Amino acid sequence: MSSIWGERLRISLFGESHGPAVGVVVDGFPAGMTVDLERINTEMERRRPKATVYSTKRKEADEVEILSGLYRGRTTGAPICGLVRNTDTRSRDYEETSHLARPGHADYTASVRFGGYNDFRGGGHFSARLTAPLVFAGALTRQFLEVKGIHIGSHIWSIGDITDVAFDMADITRKQLENLRSMELPVNDASCAELYSQLIDEARRDLDSVGGIIETAVIGLPAGIGTPYFCNVEGKLSSILFSIPAVKGVEFGAGFTITRMRGSKANDSFYMDGEQVRTKTNNNGGINGGITNGMPVVFRVALKPVPSIAKAQDTIDMKKMEDAVLEIEGRHDTCIVPRAVPVVEAACAIALCDLYLTQFGYQCL
Amino acid sequence: MSSIWGERLRISLFGESHGPAVGVVVDGFPAGMTVDLERINTEMERRRPKATVYSTKRKEADEVEILSGLYRGRTTGAPICGLVRNTDTRSRDYEETSHLARPGHADYTASVRFGGYNDFRGGGHFSARLTAPLVFAGALTRQFLEVKGIHIGSHIWSIGDITDVAFDMADITRKQLENLRSMELPVNDASCAELYSQLIDEARRDLDSVGGIIETAVIGLPAGIGTPYFCNVEGKLSSILFSIPAVKGVEFGAGFTITRMRGSKANDSFYMDGEQVRTKTNNNGGINGGITNGMPVVFRVALKPVPSIAKAQDTIDMKKMEDAVLEIEGRHDTCIVPRAVPVVEAACAIALCDLYLTQFGYQCL
Amino acid sequence: MSSIWGERLRISLFGESHGPAVGVVVDGFPAGMTVDLERINTEMERRRPKATVYSTKRKEADEVEILSGLYRGRTTGAPICGLVRNTDTRSRDYEETSHLARPGHADYTASVRFGGYNDFRGGGHFSARLTAPLVFAGALTRQFLEVKGIHIGSHIWSIGDITDVAFDMADITRKQLENLRSMELPVNDASCAELYSQLIDEARRDLDSVGGIIETAVIGLPAGIGTPYFCNVEGKLSSILFSIPAVKGVEFGAGFTITRMRGSKANDSFYMDGEQVRTKTNNNGGINGGITNGMPVVFRVALKPVPSIAKAQDTIDMKKMEDAVLEIEGRHDTCIVPRAVPVVEAACAIALCDLYLTQFGYQCL
Amino acid sequence: MSSIWGERLRISLFGESHGPAVGVVVDGFPAGMTVDLERINTEMERRRPKATVYSTKRKEADEVEILSGLYRGRTTGAPICGLVRNTDTRSRDYEETSHLARPGHADYTASVRFGGYNDFRGGGHFSARLTAPLVFAGALTRQFLEVKGIHIGSHIWSIGDITDVAFDMADITRKQLENLRSMELPVNDASCAELYSQLIDEARRDLDSVGGIIETAVIGLPAGIGTPYFCNVEGKLSSILFSIPAVKGVEFGAGFTITRMRGSKANDSFYMDGEQVRTKTNNNGGINGGITNGMPVVFRVALKPVPSIAKAQDTIDMKKMEDAVLEIEGRHDTCIVPRAVPVVEAACAIALCDLYLTQFGYQCL
Repeated sequence: MSSIWGERLRISLFGESHGPAVGVVVDGFPAGMTVDLERINTEMERRRPKATVYSTKRKEADEVEILSGLYRGRTTGAPICGLVRNTDTRSRDYEETSHLARPGHADYTASVRFGGYNDFRGGGHFSARLTAPLVFAGALTRQFLEVKGIHIGSHIWSIGDITDVAFDMADITRKQLENLRSMELPVNDASCAELYSQLIDEARRDLDSVGGIIETAVIGLPAGIGTPYFCNVEGKLSSILFSIPAVKGVEFGAGFTITRMRGSKANDSFYMDGEQVRTKTNNNGGINGGITNGMPVVFRVALKPVPSIAKAQDTIDMKKMEDAVLEIEGRHDTCIVPRAVPVVEAACAIALCDLYLTQFGYQCL
Repeated sequence: MSSIWGERLRISLFGESHGPAVGVVVDGFPAGMTVDLERINTEMERRRPKATVYSTKRKEADEVEILSGLYRGRTTGAPICGLVRNTDTRSRDYEETSHLARPGHADYTASVRFGGYNDFRGGGHFSARLTAPLVFAGALTRQFLEVKGIHIGSHIWSIGDITDVAFDMADITRKQLENLRSMELPVNDASCAELYSQLIDEARRDLDSVGGIIETAVIGLPAGIGTPYFCNVEGKLSSILFSIPAVKGVEFGAGFTITRMRGSKANDSFYMDGEQVRTKTNNNGGINGGITNGMPVVFRVALKPVPSIAKAQDTIDMKKMEDAVLEIEGRHDTCIVPRAVPVVEAACAIALCDLYLTQFGYQCL
Repeated sequence: MSSIWGERLRISLFGESHGPAVGVVVDGFPAGMTVDLERINTEMERRRPKATVYSTKRKEADEVEILSGLYRGRTTGAPICGLVRNTDTRSRDYEETSHLARPGHADYTASVRFGGYNDFRGGGHFSARLTAPLVFAGALTRQFLEVKGIHIGSHIWSIGDITDVAFDMADITRKQLENLRSMELPVNDASCAELYSQLIDEARRDLDSVGGIIETAVIGLPAGIGTPYFCNVEGKLSSILFSIPAVKGVEFGAGFTITRMRGSKANDSFYMDGEQVRTKTNNNGGINGGITNGMPVVFRVALKPVPSIAKAQDTIDMKKMEDAVLEIEGRHDTCIVPRAVPVVEAACAIALCDLYLTQFGYQCL
Repeated sequence: MSSIWGERLRISLFGESHGPAVGVVVDGFPAGMTVDLERINTEMERRRPKATVYSTKRKEADEVEILSGLYRGRTTGAPICGLVRNTDTRSRDYEETSHLARPGHADYTASVRFGGYNDFRGGGHFSARLTAPLVFAGALTRQFLEVKGIHIGSHIWSIGDITDVAFDMADITRKQLENLRSMELPVNDASCAELYSQLIDEARRDLDSVGGIIETAVIGLPAGIGTPYFCNVEGKLSSILFSIPAVKGVEFGAGFTITRMRGSKANDSFYMDGEQVRTKTNNNGGINGGITNGMPVVFRVALKPVPSIAKAQDTIDMKKMEDAVLEIEGRHDTCIVPRAVPVVEAACAIALCDLYLTQFGYQCL
């Protein structure tokens, strides 16, 4: 079992969708950092359900109470606990249908795993609600990385079969990333946002849902972070990215597409750009042999369509152990991708902060 | 840093391409298992360079000496150390060009990471040679899994832009997997093998290399293995799969393709097959909420083309810190994908054995 | 850094003496256990400062709010977060003298370690206040162990130079342990309690403090728990016991005294007691080669006298970096030993629960 | 299960007393250190059985073969595997009596733990023979610490009831520690060596064995290493020290004796010694709140008498499950304490190296 992740920086998640609260303990965070609470709220806000076409109507205030690790506005080096109280929970929606395993959800597997004792309401501990404290931990670690000149940004690469313009992986600017952060549907090609909205709206009217792909870039990472074999950057990042509900694929640089290139094209040639070592292309996504090479680290995560849909679905009744039909009522997202953007960035920030501290040791700012 | 992976079952890799030996310590392995040495040799043989078009001409005997953890042919519960001596090493090939960073390789990043003290010969500790002990550890864990009725098999999904017939993810048999294991180029559509060989041969003649995708399936895993969030099956598997040199992408079930489905299609409906819970489709690759649901676990890994190519390449001279041109002589694979099949399966077996022991506790067979 | 302990069962501590709250996340706890809240309160009560001679006058309600991992009174398998709000904090006492390093305390070392950013009030995260959530985690794990027939109890072996009658390590009953739990000053020889009180009272009148030794016994542990070398029972237990503030020594069985025996006396002879293997003596404290042998596990922890004393003490001024004299005002314990008893037992329960789950796998009750 | 220890620096032990070899993988060791092989041999030599009164007559060459992690005499940053072949093994001694559980040994507990599949010959993986690779890992880490100005030394505090003069814990010099290292029976009071020898000789003639206490000191550690709660210096050190066979107690500073002091005496007053912060006494053994304060770190470990004695002993027959009498023939130490000195120092060096790297990050020398 584990809701704990990391080595030098470790986070410990807790809470259920319909319990009293969700939260996280961040252990090993550097001392002396002035915490920008407004910045944390901005990140929390990015993840919050919005009253638009694509999102659940559950209203969550998502205010984080910091219970420890802060003194006079600065981190103390002691564990930081952030707590988010659950408010707008309607458990009755779930209790009536709790014996029906929602397809694509963890209802059945959780029931087997925990002997039927799991809190099934809203998915319990499996709920995407747990990404709220993850974003809080991400906001903290992100602020640390920014002090070190490391910046993270993302665009929605695709929703369904509509695709945005990709990053130029060998040339990504801080301004570009900051721009994306301010957009509700972050895209490189502005016309995409409208198309995405239409596609989501169509799915909603069909009582269905859609998935998509997020492309994330990290700039400013020094060369030499990571380790061959089991602490390589790809492995570290993927292990936390796959913890985000609905993620079914992770690729770095050209990813699956690199398999269709020949070596002479896939290899990123090194060259000197003044004093600095750079590569002409960046098909390896800034990572060679599991270690950063100083170029932007770029990866993509595939998010499946939200499994909670209003359409009737075949399934089983877990009490009677017989076939059944399920109709899910209530509130649910049509497309989780936009809200997943800050979550993916948070997971990325946490993993990089851990790798950074492992490499450079404990830091007082 | 870490060349150690796992929690309940842990492996500790060591060695360099041109040092005295490579090896692995397997810690936490169950006591009482009669080790099938022939079976281990079969796995080692599958990984060995072969005198065919696609492979390096280095001759490695790859005989494993088991130094500990075995008594009277059975595992004792103590750590098992397997050692493979390096024999056919021609270091001079590398020493002459060691100041030139091979594009796509770890030469530059390793040099930054280890202050230039890394053993660069043949990639040193970063070498794919380290996959030999990985396959040894995989052969052991695989034997344990088979005792528990769990079987692993793979086919080469694609090389370059040629693609094999995919697994029917909801219906994979043990016979099918065993069949694949006996093939030098394991494919579902026999005609593919010939096409793959031609494509590799073309690349070789062009002094170039090609990559590909491996699709792996695991059958017989009981439902309920894994944990929400940070010990989920996808995260565990991906963290070790990305440790295999050249892997740039990992996806489960329908993977990146699931993002183009709507929820109503992507969701795998449950139904009762007699006493057993099954799903009609298997787009989630046998995993819901990070936990196995009893269906086959299916995943794909993307392997980039071998970066060592005979063609001239632009790069930098790491001593003079100036641009340079590199021509790699000597022996290298044109396509690593066939040899990577047993490595991917080994990594998978190690991860699943760790998850199994975590769930069910220590085992004496 | 780490406020996280354990492998299969992990606890994550957070909070400071004068911050909003202290708490703990318990990860990996078995599902399906009906939590006895009254029993938890009893343990919390045992640790609370009491208005007797030996204890601080700080009034702490110490009510635990369980924020997660519980549904309908049973554990769900998800992380359990227990929160204890801080109420009666008088920070001003500390702010005036925060530049003076209290001898025997962590003021100086914490300041170096965390660049002066640590929350020094009441010792911050270093405070013995953190033992409140530790006792909560201990109460949970203890309840699990009791379901498995494993029981823990302690007596105060000594305070200052007064010594109680030791356990007969080869013969300890459940009744004896339960008896001890109900005593405010748990002792085997009833007359000791009065002597202990007098000695504490004398020290208090002298504006000084006293330490002591706790002897703890565990009965009902099956043989075969633990592992040679680095997961041995002694190492596991000691690593968490030394985390309890003021502990400076840990010994098992006859401990330091065994060094004065010859082998023929120190060795505990095995014999058959009906079907059961037992030893005649128990100088090894129920552990051979790091693994339980089925006899009671017995250990002792040495607690130094509380460093906060009212007497004037020489020290340094950490701002001016010059010699200074410190007079500590306010509230502090004269003897921490009685309040440390439930803390030692809690740490023991946590460690044994981790070892138990490691050995026997995940449990649903 | 685990024969792996550490976080940033990790060691992985393997081997059995009568198998082909014992060895260790050292993972995370800094790159660029010129390895002093002679120095390693000196440490190995200190641990070797000697043909004196107190030691087994088994002849072990104990030459370490370094299989990886070294290139041109320097560490490369990759894992270092050190192998020691077993040569002089007489397994027949053990096979005849393998069904009789040697009192004080792990025969019975190992048999339960590993279902009877453990290699019992000479204690198998439980054997003190495994301390040979531990000393190798210690010699490496020790050399690293010495580069950083950190030195370790020990004397034999007591054997049986004879006691040496203790360290003056507040004032220990490098010269003093180096002096001790060159002595076969390291003592502060030279006259003790003779008394120790006599006492061991007496025990040998009585077919019995004796134990003792080792006191170890570390000087040159900077203040600020370690962490409150679960990564405190005491906990870290004790967790590896208790892994050394025969250790039954560990104490820091004044240890168990501090419980008999009052706070006003136990507290170590700080004062300025020029620019440097020091304490007048060192009852806390250089550690406050789990963190080093810059004073010498001093601890003591209690080693029980060797359980293998020639005297007849009562025990059980593990096959027939009935009472039996055991007479151990063959070779065994009368007193393990002198040979344990380099082992204790090795464990200490490994733990401190791990703490150092955790604090200060990865190091290239």
